[in-house]
Amino acid sequence: MIKVVAKNKLMNDKIEVVKSLYEELVNATRKEDGCIKYELYQDDKDATVLTMIEEWVDKDALDKHMKTEHFLKIVPMVGEFVIGNELNIYNKVF
Amino acid sequence: MIKVVAKNKLMNDKIEVVKSLYEELVNATRKEDGCIKYELYQDDKDATVLTMIEEWVDKDALDKHMKTEHFLKIVPMVGEFVIGNELNIYNKVF
Repeated sequence: MIKVVAKNKLMNDKIEVVKSLYEELVNATRKEDGCIKYELYQDDKDATVLTMIEEWVDKDALDKHMKTEHFLKIVPMVGEFVIGNELNIYNKVF
Repeated sequence: MIKVVAKNKLMNDKIEVVKSLYEELVNATRKEDGCIKYELYQDDKDATVLTMIEEWVDKDALDKHMKTEHFLKIVPMVGEFVIGNELNIYNKVF
């Protein structure tokens, strides 16, 4: 299993449009083979921070996800409204 | 439910000692009331990045956690070896 944390800092007035875009992405992604969890979170103190927290069976499943039609359509659209981002791919220690 | 992502960038030669300290913290924390998940992850490309990904029933449980003896003992010990950190507390969007 691998864990992904994709954290985005958004433009102040684009939070709701990004949530809508991410909703479409979440719904399509959860149907993919190898997707264990794909959930969107919002920072408790800073509403402009939206973070996808993901679990995949392996890196191959994640690679395939990043080549899907929905990923390649929606992620660049979200990117228009992002002013900072961090992506970490993690292995579990314990 | 609230989600916590506590990301630490460590000194290069302190990864193993921090893992040991965190192992003790994980074992004690998982016994706390209100702790749903408390897991340590290591970045796939940068071994000096260790991140705790947590789930708590509510913020009250998280607040209590941060006042426990094990938290107050171990977190400052880890802090000696941390060169950068980020803490986000998240609410689920979907």
